[in-house]
Amino acid sequence: VIRKNVDGKEGDPDNKGKFISVIRPLLVELIGTCFFVLIGLFGVCSAGPGVVAAAFAFGLALMVFAASFGHISGVHFNPSVTLGVLLAGEVQPVMAVLYFVMQLLGGIAAGGIAKMLLRDGVYARCRGGATVLSTYVAFNHTLPDNNIVFYTEDTVKWWEGILIELLVTFVFITIILMVALDTKSKTGLAPVLIGFTLVACILAAGAFTGGSLNPARSLGPAIFANEWKDHYVYWVGPLAGAAIAGCFYRFIWAHSDRRIPRRIK
Amino acid sequence: VIRKNVDGKEGDPDNKGKFISVIRPLLVELIGTCFFVLIGLFGVCSAGPGVVAAAFAFGLALMVFAASFGHISGVHFNPSVTLGVLLAGEVQPVMAVLYFVMQLLGGIAAGGIAKMLLRDGVYARCRGGATVLSTYVAFNHTLPDNNIVFYTEDTVKWWEGILIELLVTFVFITIILMVALDTKSKTGLAPVLIGFTLVACILAAGAFTGGSLNPARSLGPAIFANEWKDHYVYWVGPLAGAAIAGCFYRFIWAHSDRRIPRRIK
Amino acid sequence: VIRKNVDGKEGDPDNKGKFISVIRPLLVELIGTCFFVLIGLFGVCSAGPGVVAAAFAFGLALMVFAASFGHISGVHFNPSVTLGVLLAGEVQPVMAVLYFVMQLLGGIAAGGIAKMLLRDGVYARCRGGATVLSTYVAFNHTLPDNNIVFYTEDTVKWWEGILIELLVTFVFITIILMVALDTKSKTGLAPVLIGFTLVACILAAGAFTGGSLNPARSLGPAIFANEWKDHYVYWVGPLAGAAIAGCFYRFIWAHSDRRIPRRIK
Amino acid sequence: VIRKNVDGKEGDPDNKGKFISVIRPLLVELIGTCFFVLIGLFGVCSAGPGVVAAAFAFGLALMVFAASFGHISGVHFNPSVTLGVLLAGEVQPVMAVLYFVMQLLGGIAAGGIAKMLLRDGVYARCRGGATVLSTYVAFNHTLPDNNIVFYTEDTVKWWEGILIELLVTFVFITIILMVALDTKSKTGLAPVLIGFTLVACILAAGAFTGGSLNPARSLGPAIFANEWKDHYVYWVGPLAGAAIAGCFYRFIWAHSDRRIPRRIK
Repeated sequence: VIRKNVDGKEGDPDNKGKFISVIRPLLVELIGTCFFVLIGLFGVCSAGPGVVAAAFAFGLALMVFAASFGHISGVHFNPSVTLGVLLAGEVQPVMAVLYFVMQLLGGIAAGGIAKMLLRDGVYARCRGGATVLSTYVAFNHTLPDNNIVFYTEDTVKWWEGILIELLVTFVFITIILMVALDTKSKTGLAPVLIGFTLVACILAAGAFTGGSLNPARSLGPAIFANEWKDHYVYWVGPLAGAAIAGCFYRFIWAHSDRRIPRRIK
Repeated sequence: VIRKNVDGKEGDPDNKGKFISVIRPLLVELIGTCFFVLIGLFGVCSAGPGVVAAAFAFGLALMVFAASFGHISGVHFNPSVTLGVLLAGEVQPVMAVLYFVMQLLGGIAAGGIAKMLLRDGVYARCRGGATVLSTYVAFNHTLPDNNIVFYTEDTVKWWEGILIELLVTFVFITIILMVALDTKSKTGLAPVLIGFTLVACILAAGAFTGGSLNPARSLGPAIFANEWKDHYVYWVGPLAGAAIAGCFYRFIWAHSDRRIPRRIK
Repeated sequence: VIRKNVDGKEGDPDNKGKFISVIRPLLVELIGTCFFVLIGLFGVCSAGPGVVAAAFAFGLALMVFAASFGHISGVHFNPSVTLGVLLAGEVQPVMAVLYFVMQLLGGIAAGGIAKMLLRDGVYARCRGGATVLSTYVAFNHTLPDNNIVFYTEDTVKWWEGILIELLVTFVFITIILMVALDTKSKTGLAPVLIGFTLVACILAAGAFTGGSLNPARSLGPAIFANEWKDHYVYWVGPLAGAAIAGCFYRFIWAHSDRRIPRRIK
Repeated sequence: VIRKNVDGKEGDPDNKGKFISVIRPLLVELIGTCFFVLIGLFGVCSAGPGVVAAAFAFGLALMVFAASFGHISGVHFNPSVTLGVLLAGEVQPVMAVLYFVMQLLGGIAAGGIAKMLLRDGVYARCRGGATVLSTYVAFNHTLPDNNIVFYTEDTVKWWEGILIELLVTFVFITIILMVALDTKSKTGLAPVLIGFTLVACILAAGAFTGGSLNPARSLGPAIFANEWKDHYVYWVGPLAGAAIAGCFYRFIWAHSDRRIPRRIK
């Protein structure tokens, strides 16, 4: 996923232009994030029971994009991933900022396309795929004299939402850094593993926070569905989780040639 | 999936006959499309909740056929795929036309077998697996004086259906071209990735358009279930998506030795 | 799955004994079939909605057994597979008969263990995991004078059941022969692909015939649940499908060194 | 999963410290078990229909941790796995005891985090993700005189629960030893296969015992949900299954260089 740009080898006439080294990666982040988020939003709005369909739609879409465009842009598609990779020292800060902008624009485009293509009733029922903290029927009390049943609603608290998003994003970014970047543990199966990590994380968090892990995935639908309740949760949680994962990687998990402070060579 | 015929090496007596180079690939497209569509149609008609069963039935069937017959025919099984591969310059136009005919015949055979083997009640409930634009209960209004509830139905519009099919087919063909054809990014995991791409696309589009991506998959059931409403959607959307994906590949995503106009060598 | 016994190389003292070449493979077929069927039966009796749980329980169990014991016995676990492999000329007839006996004994053991470990109510509801042709509520008629609703039941016919089992087993055996045996197309991903083939086939056939593809999987539960209705369907369909798949492989799909009549060398 | 520590090569300055050879593996077991169990518990408490979401949450989480941290600690995350690997002679007894302690602490941390982050109503409904033997509505009797319906409840017996956990854990440990340890059958796909084994085992056992296979996964939620009914089942069953699997491996399945008594070299 975070393989470096290997397309433009030295001696290759492509190498001189900005097209291969800058424009094409940004285009992949823009278009790719848009389609990745779009497939996920449609999976969410399919409204089958549980979060299985949404989890596999997001996870498998990320898997196949990572496998096919990883050599061009690294397929971050997510500001948290870019933050984690930045902390791991594998992307230049300028490029990270440009990726970040492209990812937000891609997510916004996906939110707009979903608004345009989904029928109003479907769109309203799934709030355009926007992520919000879930509300449950918690307890029901039956009044003894007239048998009327009252339901008490219960909503996930903001700090619970932030911590849940933080924890699953921590896992997500940690796995990405290990299977796609680390000298020792990186593997050709990285796209498959990264996709399945996202599936597992959305299966875990989906019923409680919507399972975002990704500010770009949350921003687009929020704009078009005008659903700003708890929206900051999906920035604070994932970005904090990514930052912690990046630090753990650099100080503890990384192979000796990348670990701080004992970086050799 | 789109590996060339490597069975008939030079010096191999097989190489001289038409059997290996023409007849056997066409037979694979005919029989393979029939079984691929058949497994999918049965998955659709199983009528479990949501589109999960249908998505995995279609996607996993494509995966395993691609892995086992990819070296013979490329396992297109879909006119959109053949169109995309044709635009990418990896199949001869004459062969593409023959593939196209075989795929339609295979899909028709699958539609006929499903009609023959499914009980009438099951067949009617799933319209023989034919793809149609979905109808939802959109809003319900309760009349204040007699408490009768009216439901407003809402159906996916033709242009929404075309765009949804176009977008997911664009993703599907793009991934196929990148993981199975492109000099840089093709991989031995291609069949697995292509299968999972189809799973993700059907999870996304299934609840709204049925998730066809494939005129051959839509034609067969439409004939036997006599379900022609919106049928053109499943030709226009997927083929347009494939054409756009083929152009994007040639002009932007392809490795330098295949990209236009800077084709070297 | 059908890799030959490579454990006993020449010069290896193991090679002389019957343990490695005969007893251990038979033990794998016996114990492996028992556990494979058992995991599947428990998945069937979990009674979630649809066939998704059963399909993945059977398919993933086969996948992991094939990956871990394929080098010992080939992991047939299914008389249809043994028949297909026999027709492809990759197992000796004597060994095939012994495998066949072991598979039936393993399936019977699984049926018995399921009877012993599942509570009566659960066991009765899923008929011990036995495969029977499904019965549906087909149509309902409301009598005009008293509003009583009558349901017409509809059951899958015997010949439909046989053909459905035949078709999916044909696909299953064909994929096994191509990815695990064929000189050209065999691949290290064979266990994964074979497992997913079984998932797809059960997703397709499960709602109609139970998705057996395997007489050994059907015999054990039938004995302990005393459920013999349509039992012959699960012998005729899978074995016929395997026989046809074996012939197609030998005459059409196989690489030139294994194909009849143009077998070279 | 049980690859040895290959990070600290000779001549590598890391090799001298305890950090690489002891502290870091224990940290992986502690933190990894915590996150693995946490993702699974959240999947269980999502309360979708059936066990599909829980099975994939646990299985895919194990898969991706095994792929990314297998080179550091072996990613046991489960006392049963450590016991099986110990019997197979691939981990030192002292290290096994330390792993065991770390796994229990990790599981307890996960149980505590789940208690903290899940709303009371959700937590109570899924008993904090604790594993208990299932209770079913077995039969219903209608009294003839007043049409009141009585339901008879039925609960999985303790010995059934132990045997079910024992059998699936036997399969789980056997597959792990074969694909990750055995000289002949170990494979680079081991993490994928081990993850899918856990999915299959939970799909099979989940509806009856909760599908633990892992005392550390059962202990943590039991403490915080104060749910001790049948808790010993989840120690006796998995550990017995692992012990039997370890013995079968050493005496029957292992390649000749590891098999007892004919150990060569």
